[in-house]
Amino acid sequence: MTLGKLIEEADASREVLAVYEDIKATRQTDYINNFWKILANDPNTLRRTWSDLKEVMAPGAIDALTKELIYLAVSISNGCEYCTVSHTAAARRAGMTKEMREELIAVVGMANNTNRLANAYRVESDARFVEAATME
Amino acid sequence: MTLGKLIEEADASREVLAVYEDIKATRQTDYINNFWKILANDPNTLRRTWSDLKEVMAPGAIDALTKELIYLAVSISNGCEYCTVSHTAAARRAGMTKEMREELIAVVGMANNTNRLANAYRVESDARFVEAATME
Amino acid sequence: MTLGKLIEEADASREVLAVYEDIKATRQTDYINNFWKILANDPNTLRRTWSDLKEVMAPGAIDALTKELIYLAVSISNGCEYCTVSHTAAARRAGMTKEMREELIAVVGMANNTNRLANAYRVESDARFVEAATME
Amino acid sequence: MTLGKLIEEADASREVLAVYEDIKATRQTDYINNFWKILANDPNTLRRTWSDLKEVMAPGAIDALTKELIYLAVSISNGCEYCTVSHTAAARRAGMTKEMREELIAVVGMANNTNRLANAYRVESDARFVEAATME
Amino acid sequence: MTLGKLIEEADASREVLAVYEDIKATRQTDYINNFWKILANDPNTLRRTWSDLKEVMAPGAIDALTKELIYLAVSISNGCEYCTVSHTAAARRAGMTKEMREELIAVVGMANNTNRLANAYRVESDARFVEAATME
Amino acid sequence: MTLGKLIEEADASREVLAVYEDIKATRQTDYINNFWKILANDPNTLRRTWSDLKEVMAPGAIDALTKELIYLAVSISNGCEYCTVSHTAAARRAGMTKEMREELIAVVGMANNTNRLANAYRVESDARFVEAATME
Repeated sequence: MTLGKLIEEADASREVLAVYEDIKATRQTDYINNFWKILANDPNTLRRTWSDLKEVMAPGAIDALTKELIYLAVSISNGCEYCTVSHTAAARRAGMTKEMREELIAVVGMANNTNRLANAYRVESDARFVEAATME
Repeated sequence: MTLGKLIEEADASREVLAVYEDIKATRQTDYINNFWKILANDPNTLRRTWSDLKEVMAPGAIDALTKELIYLAVSISNGCEYCTVSHTAAARRAGMTKEMREELIAVVGMANNTNRLANAYRVESDARFVEAATME
Repeated sequence: MTLGKLIEEADASREVLAVYEDIKATRQTDYINNFWKILANDPNTLRRTWSDLKEVMAPGAIDALTKELIYLAVSISNGCEYCTVSHTAAARRAGMTKEMREELIAVVGMANNTNRLANAYRVESDARFVEAATME
Repeated sequence: MTLGKLIEEADASREVLAVYEDIKATRQTDYINNFWKILANDPNTLRRTWSDLKEVMAPGAIDALTKELIYLAVSISNGCEYCTVSHTAAARRAGMTKEMREELIAVVGMANNTNRLANAYRVESDARFVEAATME
Repeated sequence: MTLGKLIEEADASREVLAVYEDIKATRQTDYINNFWKILANDPNTLRRTWSDLKEVMAPGAIDALTKELIYLAVSISNGCEYCTVSHTAAARRAGMTKEMREELIAVVGMANNTNRLANAYRVESDARFVEAATME
Repeated sequence: MTLGKLIEEADASREVLAVYEDIKATRQTDYINNFWKILANDPNTLRRTWSDLKEVMAPGAIDALTKELIYLAVSISNGCEYCTVSHTAAARRAGMTKEMREELIAVVGMANNTNRLANAYRVESDARFVEAATME
């Protein structure tokens, strides 16, 4: 349905256009997707969200494809339709194969299962895991 | 707190012990963690969960470390304490560095943020993303 | 899709009609929305839910508009389509402007983000915050 | 537990200190809470999160107290302990009374209830609500 | 921690005491648990919540034990510690055996798993299931 | 939409067909629903999920209908459309009446409500409930 107006480039303010241009340059595409066009109703949130996403998703200690897999896993787990579709597409573009997608889905399902098994018994954390998780 | 009795190896049935032995052999460790010890109250769920996890988490099209990152991302997103602690430890053991952990956390936060921005506007999926996500 | 029959006024029992009348009088409208029409399949849940909602959403220490903003924020965060649409409409009717909606959405996104950052590190609460939160 | 080291001011880099100073100036306090001290392990996420939060939570079309109420409502709904405690404290500081807190909690409970009633029947959105929610 | 004061019977208003008495009579116990004692800070929410719960949980088309199993399943799935503990206790009192608890936990884990498998592919509902779910 | 190809029996591998045959025999139906047809893209996940589901949902200490009610309650609570529709249909087939469905929905709504009331106050568990929940 989309509860708002998609702001097309022809109707965009200079502030919004600057973000659109950066999205196109960064992603090497001519296509601005609906998510950005709806956020453009609020230029501050558009700018902030794009700027954050660009920084967070840039390859670093974790490569770009793996970041997309993580993003997709969270979106599936949360049941967000738009994000599941768009990040499946994005992950595919970044190199996710059919086999990788299937394995990712299986891991997401499994994690959601065992999260509840642990919840059910309110299992206390193993001291050695707490220690290992407290990396410095 | 742990709402049940942790089944130690000394008290385990043959069926439970067989799973414990396989966990130790597969993970090359002598340590059985609390999650398995509590599941051992229900040998069927212990067997099934371990067998599934072993299959799902084995390296395939996605390597073992990346699978751990995905598992951890989902567990953080769901707010499961035990799983966050134990899979931070597991991911670390599989090679996650401090920098990787920090980047993973940033991606999980960001995905949870944009999932809600998309929810708020009930953004319709872009046709080209639906097509790309429908991999065959 | 709506998995059930919408109970129209013409087909409603006296018990259901009494709730419909109270909804119309309280909201100063002639329109009964789909949520109530589907709940009318279970007159007990219809009566209880309307009676609770009327009490909870009435202006008190928090005004009616702010209560609608809170309701909408939770519904967006939970990804409930019906509630997001209907409470965006309700909040608008109660006075939410376009700018308020945009700011609300940004806050919801941000809260979902930092909730996961806190989950990731299982951050211990600051003693002074626990004390301040324990209002008497 | 806190799965990491809290970075105290004495041990902070210049980059981290600059954020700490801005937090203290903006909030008119001398206290840096645990959330920022743990995020300081990742100066990029610290800077980005603080900068976003400062922008998003500043009074605008929605006043500062109402923003805190929305933030708290989402944090309670998501079950985040740290955020529930810290934002109860923050909301109180911003002027939330005991009565306001009680009413907020009732609204959050109610929204979570009706979100599931709507989910259960997959209720279709009323056309007039879709229209009203599509504000331009 | 409990972010508030537990209202003991000795300190309760007449309005609160009336609810406490009804809880004790209905449940045939002398014990008022912490949930009610904290809700008593807000007598309206105490009264409304108890009245709703009493009505909803009373045996009807679904017996009391099965209702407790459903309540517990939702609480585990949502990761609510207090509710998981208290409704495990309540279900046990209503007749849940160790074997039933184990099977319930397995079902909750499985549902959370397959919910995400369905989310991942955004599977369209089978027409015959929509029809069967639209009971009249 | 369904983000993938539904694998029909005519196009299924022997491995997939074997699962389909077992589904049909176990459920005494000729119909393979979309969930299995999409999972068939990943024969390992198809086999594992079906095998788990068959084991977990078989009548044991909890009867088949009650297991369906629990499954449906979790699916509604999580907002999974496919699972809500398909398990409403499955529960109906297993004997769920209109009245049972209505009561189940009311319990799910109520649990989601009180889960958040407990979250809001971070209520500490009653010692006697912890003890009762620690069944051995």
